[in-house]
Amino acid sequence: MVEAKRHSGGEGLSFLMVGGGPGAFIGAVHKAAVDLLGRARLVGGCFSQSFDKSKAQGKLWSIAPDRVYPTYAQMLTQEAARPDRPDFVTIVTPNNTHYPVAKMALEKGFHVVCDKPLCLTVKEASDLVATARQKRLEFLVTYTYVGYPMVRQAREMVKRGDLGDLRLVIAEYAQDWLADQPKDNKQAGWRTDPKVSGLAGCMGDIGTHAESLASFITDLSPVSLLANLDTFVKGRKLDDNGFVWLKYPRGIKGSIWASQVAVGKENGLTIRLFGTKGGLEWQQENPNLLYFMPKGKPVELLTRAQGYLHPHAGRYTRLPTGHPEGLFEAFANLYDGFISTIIAKRKGTKPSDFDLFPNVGDGARGVKFIHALIKSNKNKNTWVTLDK
Amino acid sequence: MVEAKRHSGGEGLSFLMVGGGPGAFIGAVHKAAVDLLGRARLVGGCFSQSFDKSKAQGKLWSIAPDRVYPTYAQMLTQEAARPDRPDFVTIVTPNNTHYPVAKMALEKGFHVVCDKPLCLTVKEASDLVATARQKRLEFLVTYTYVGYPMVRQAREMVKRGDLGDLRLVIAEYAQDWLADQPKDNKQAGWRTDPKVSGLAGCMGDIGTHAESLASFITDLSPVSLLANLDTFVKGRKLDDNGFVWLKYPRGIKGSIWASQVAVGKENGLTIRLFGTKGGLEWQQENPNLLYFMPKGKPVELLTRAQGYLHPHAGRYTRLPTGHPEGLFEAFANLYDGFISTIIAKRKGTKPSDFDLFPNVGDGARGVKFIHALIKSNKNKNTWVTLDK
Amino acid sequence: MVEAKRHSGGEGLSFLMVGGGPGAFIGAVHKAAVDLLGRARLVGGCFSQSFDKSKAQGKLWSIAPDRVYPTYAQMLTQEAARPDRPDFVTIVTPNNTHYPVAKMALEKGFHVVCDKPLCLTVKEASDLVATARQKRLEFLVTYTYVGYPMVRQAREMVKRGDLGDLRLVIAEYAQDWLADQPKDNKQAGWRTDPKVSGLAGCMGDIGTHAESLASFITDLSPVSLLANLDTFVKGRKLDDNGFVWLKYPRGIKGSIWASQVAVGKENGLTIRLFGTKGGLEWQQENPNLLYFMPKGKPVELLTRAQGYLHPHAGRYTRLPTGHPEGLFEAFANLYDGFISTIIAKRKGTKPSDFDLFPNVGDGARGVKFIHALIKSNKNKNTWVTLDK
Amino acid sequence: MVEAKRHSGGEGLSFLMVGGGPGAFIGAVHKAAVDLLGRARLVGGCFSQSFDKSKAQGKLWSIAPDRVYPTYAQMLTQEAARPDRPDFVTIVTPNNTHYPVAKMALEKGFHVVCDKPLCLTVKEASDLVATARQKRLEFLVTYTYVGYPMVRQAREMVKRGDLGDLRLVIAEYAQDWLADQPKDNKQAGWRTDPKVSGLAGCMGDIGTHAESLASFITDLSPVSLLANLDTFVKGRKLDDNGFVWLKYPRGIKGSIWASQVAVGKENGLTIRLFGTKGGLEWQQENPNLLYFMPKGKPVELLTRAQGYLHPHAGRYTRLPTGHPEGLFEAFANLYDGFISTIIAKRKGTKPSDFDLFPNVGDGARGVKFIHALIKSNKNKNTWVTLDK
Repeated sequence: MVEAKRHSGGEGLSFLMVGGGPGAFIGAVHKAAVDLLGRARLVGGCFSQSFDKSKAQGKLWSIAPDRVYPTYAQMLTQEAARPDRPDFVTIVTPNNTHYPVAKMALEKGFHVVCDKPLCLTVKEASDLVATARQKRLEFLVTYTYVGYPMVRQAREMVKRGDLGDLRLVIAEYAQDWLADQPKDNKQAGWRTDPKVSGLAGCMGDIGTHAESLASFITDLSPVSLLANLDTFVKGRKLDDNGFVWLKYPRGIKGSIWASQVAVGKENGLTIRLFGTKGGLEWQQENPNLLYFMPKGKPVELLTRAQGYLHPHAGRYTRLPTGHPEGLFEAFANLYDGFISTIIAKRKGTKPSDFDLFPNVGDGARGVKFIHALIKSNKNKNTWVTLDK
Repeated sequence: MVEAKRHSGGEGLSFLMVGGGPGAFIGAVHKAAVDLLGRARLVGGCFSQSFDKSKAQGKLWSIAPDRVYPTYAQMLTQEAARPDRPDFVTIVTPNNTHYPVAKMALEKGFHVVCDKPLCLTVKEASDLVATARQKRLEFLVTYTYVGYPMVRQAREMVKRGDLGDLRLVIAEYAQDWLADQPKDNKQAGWRTDPKVSGLAGCMGDIGTHAESLASFITDLSPVSLLANLDTFVKGRKLDDNGFVWLKYPRGIKGSIWASQVAVGKENGLTIRLFGTKGGLEWQQENPNLLYFMPKGKPVELLTRAQGYLHPHAGRYTRLPTGHPEGLFEAFANLYDGFISTIIAKRKGTKPSDFDLFPNVGDGARGVKFIHALIKSNKNKNTWVTLDK
Repeated sequence: MVEAKRHSGGEGLSFLMVGGGPGAFIGAVHKAAVDLLGRARLVGGCFSQSFDKSKAQGKLWSIAPDRVYPTYAQMLTQEAARPDRPDFVTIVTPNNTHYPVAKMALEKGFHVVCDKPLCLTVKEASDLVATARQKRLEFLVTYTYVGYPMVRQAREMVKRGDLGDLRLVIAEYAQDWLADQPKDNKQAGWRTDPKVSGLAGCMGDIGTHAESLASFITDLSPVSLLANLDTFVKGRKLDDNGFVWLKYPRGIKGSIWASQVAVGKENGLTIRLFGTKGGLEWQQENPNLLYFMPKGKPVELLTRAQGYLHPHAGRYTRLPTGHPEGLFEAFANLYDGFISTIIAKRKGTKPSDFDLFPNVGDGARGVKFIHALIKSNKNKNTWVTLDK
Repeated sequence: MVEAKRHSGGEGLSFLMVGGGPGAFIGAVHKAAVDLLGRARLVGGCFSQSFDKSKAQGKLWSIAPDRVYPTYAQMLTQEAARPDRPDFVTIVTPNNTHYPVAKMALEKGFHVVCDKPLCLTVKEASDLVATARQKRLEFLVTYTYVGYPMVRQAREMVKRGDLGDLRLVIAEYAQDWLADQPKDNKQAGWRTDPKVSGLAGCMGDIGTHAESLASFITDLSPVSLLANLDTFVKGRKLDDNGFVWLKYPRGIKGSIWASQVAVGKENGLTIRLFGTKGGLEWQQENPNLLYFMPKGKPVELLTRAQGYLHPHAGRYTRLPTGHPEGLFEAFANLYDGFISTIIAKRKGTKPSDFDLFPNVGDGARGVKFIHALIKSNKNKNTWVTLDK
């Protein structure tokens, strides 16, 4: 093995968690990712609506018993008053509670980490954007896939013109775990319940990941869209498959296919970009690799941690090339940029260009995307302009 | 190496060619494919509008000089009168001449092989369908990719229910050779000229291949479509990129992306099908392989010439597994089914289920597909029902 | 995302580290893997021969200053005397110091984690085996790749007979980072210095990984070997490329190729096994996938975290299928089995079959493997029997 | 589709075939490849030891009945006397008859095409080399895989120094069709019978393909070898698996693994080359692709028919990039170089550098390779120098 490029740690940030109790999944991923990163420590939480379950989770994670709380409101209030008050709050609850928790956390002066979708309505999203801006607080929305180093590489390649003038963005996100209605699956339950999940099912859960990935790499927001949603499983209330066409600025066209009924697909998020001078392809299931297709030349396989990559890709790499990194590292990278930005601000310095992470504005764009595609689908599949 | 499954040859069919002169491409592919097959012999032709060029091509292919003709009309008339009159005529001219040549060939009693698209208008297409039926003549439209053995396998797997109830058909055909307007390229010239090529550019040239592949594998015709076409290269008169959504019977949904400006893609035709019980994927650039994704089980890689394949796939295989076959063999397979059908009819027997080939009806469906997508695109991207 | 299968944590084990100071690589990997696992906490260390560097590292990792030591001997003595004495010691120093540190740690009653190769001589290895047995202490040798879930799956498939009678084991481990002699690379420096690295270069560094992987999956030790080593880079004192043929019990044959001069290969460890009824292939750079080739049937792609896998593979999985895991998780899995075994023993219960990890006996086998191949190579490439 | 690069045909060469009767495999492949090429016509044959079978085959292939012969000797004599005597003879009989047929064909003044291995003994091989030279006749030995365009590309890249100084040649050829002793398989029968097949089984049948591929790409002959052969299937008289290490000039090392018992492998011929500046990999089962690994840069995927390839690769290409070519085309390419050379000589011009094909000298090297590895294996796996 060769030397690692970087170490981080020692800054001593601490944070709280809302959600993440027994039976949840993503809370444990956040925890493990932050532990892997080594730049912050979980010090308190309200992990479940059941205080007993919350206490059990706190014990498992060695949280001081007096910092496990029965309600998030109580936690935010009490923790904000501590002399060693934590730096940020991580929200990993179902979609319909993101807004009130995030709102209160901001108001109490905490930086916020929140799962996507940011919230359920455009109004809520705008309010969170405004609140974070007013309070000068950082807000990370965990569009996980943006954290992969080769996605950073793709963004920088588009930016420096390796693809020439961009023409096409083709994204897909295909899974199969909702091909039937799973029984006794807590995750599946709330994701297919409009009261908890919001207006969109598949499109809200994973279509937005594809949209955010496209926006991150191209540094563009869609101008308008045309959507075509399906519900294949009988009795399901929300979409489980959908197609969207997008118009971006400068005549760039996009297409997204998202499905949770594509039998045989596991977590098949793929994005391809085509410009006048080259193409790019990245597949989430093989994330250490990026295909670059320069016009008239051999396709190139760019791999993580190689010296020829852009520094922004190298910055988010822990292991030497050929030693696979995965989703935990991508997750940790989101936190890494977020924490670096918090520390830079604390020191009064300007955050680095490197410290990119999907923020509350990106989260709000995702909410608008969902609302626009629901509207387009209802309007017999016609074009809908996205609010700015 | 292990033993080959089959040999064919010795029936002594003969045929004529219209088009295929110097500088053409596809005529030579037809010739080589038929030579490889060994079941028919090219005996005459009108290879070019220039009689000199036609004679040069005839010499190259060892055609008797008196069977090289200045016009197709003269050829069809004189050859029809011979006691050893040929069995069929292969038409490999630009799109706008398919109709008159095919019409006359049918009227003179020849079976016909014609490149896609079959012709330029729905009226022409209907007339060719009617004429072929009335004359009881076979008519092969060379949707090449349908000839691959693993495509036959896919069709049989869908048919016997390996995928359960079909839900989704996702096809794409991406190339890059028209990313700019090529200079001095005869192929590119007529393909981007609406007078010769017809209403559609990329969609007519390759989008129809994707549509025909989907229809062949599913044994279904689309009911309606919604199209979204682009022209990225300045000054080009026809589409060079397009997206289409399709509705098939029984609630099955489809999506096609076709592009000739996707830099880095060579001949990227891919089809994926998803049903309640499984998924399938086939990629033209790696044609000896078929991915089968049975629900909850490991993905399976089915490979050409293996004993576990359906007999219809085995029938169209020449080489042992692991010894790659390619496009010539696929082309030869189309002729193989066509010739077997002619011979069966000649013998008064019923053609075998094995002897499938895309016929004049499939060609007509392709023409209607093109007309519908042009209409949808003009109507601000709204749904258009396909004529039956 | 679907639910994770397991959570772990809360047992509160603690450990010490020897090595892992500034500029080192693998120490940070151990630390991050254990943090990710969440079952033990680093509480003290002697991270460098320079006490200043050691203190700097301790500060970075938030270690209490009084538990950072100038020498490992002092640390082991003082920490053994604490009422809250740590459970184990992790040794991540260059090869030539593994033996004395591990020996002393065992004598002080600590369980041990040690990088491979275990030590430099067969005598040292035998002594460590005897000492660990006598002291009834657990000893993990971090043959990293054995920690991957799909390697566990492979082992269980061989064990239950999916491959029939095993015939062939074909392994390779190809890298390119020593294709030249790198300058100013601490890792490269000691790895190519026989005083520090031992008798073998490439074969000791990575060939032993291939051997251990083969032995783990097959549950067999090689009986004899024939080696053929090369040194391509001028001035290098140790091998940088080598081939080994192996004879296993029951007539099974093996082949290993290891290279650090294979330009273009990153961390290319691949193993293939062939039996009378099937074959298997696993590639470290795409570790979430295992190819199974049952005789006369389609090749199957088994993927991590799927329900059809053996429980032993599922046990070592954190994320849902399609969400990539990488090397940190593999590393964490080794610690997971090691810690589970320590806890089981502490509780007086029998460790589970699941809790497999490469132990001091495996490490000793690796040392004997290196000595045998050096002997074979010196003896003009003739067969050498491995000591038991 | 874009324009094809070349057409060939019209020269009117004719040839005879020995072997290739009903139930044979490779004869039909030769026939189809030459038909595809369109530069020569099969005009006579002695297809089987049974005259009846021979006549049946002749009828199938439309051979004039008076040019189907009961013995090859009669055929060669009578055909040599014709005013329109054929140009060459293709020999597709089992190994043990190659020598007498080839010898007589040369003596009668025919150019020769012969399957590999060229013959059974080194003496026979030397005699054929001498006879061909003396008679100034061309002699193609059909090492099929050398015919692929991307293999030509690899050769030219090595030649022009893209890999720097070559260090390693790693080849393997793994199949599974002899994992058991197949019943009622004519191909398997003679290939495992030493009287017909010669000294070696697997190594003679496919190991020699790997060796010839390595020699063709590197333009080097091995100097010495060390072999390790196995027979896994009980009762089999010849090897069915083997490993060979090779020493080439200039310190270049090689390794070949060949197996016919590797369950799950179809026709897995792969070659990799590593030099000081780059690496190359080519896989027969995906022949339109060549991996180039320049040091410190992204891996490049070179694909058939692209403009950036060496002219020698472009010369042997028929279809545009992305339209797969396969084994028939590779076979046809061997004939193409052979026929071009015959025609050049007939015209009194020097054959082009492009017109490379494996000749009788390459065939003789293959025979020596087999004899050396049998000797090495018998001598307890020790080094054997190859005769020049």
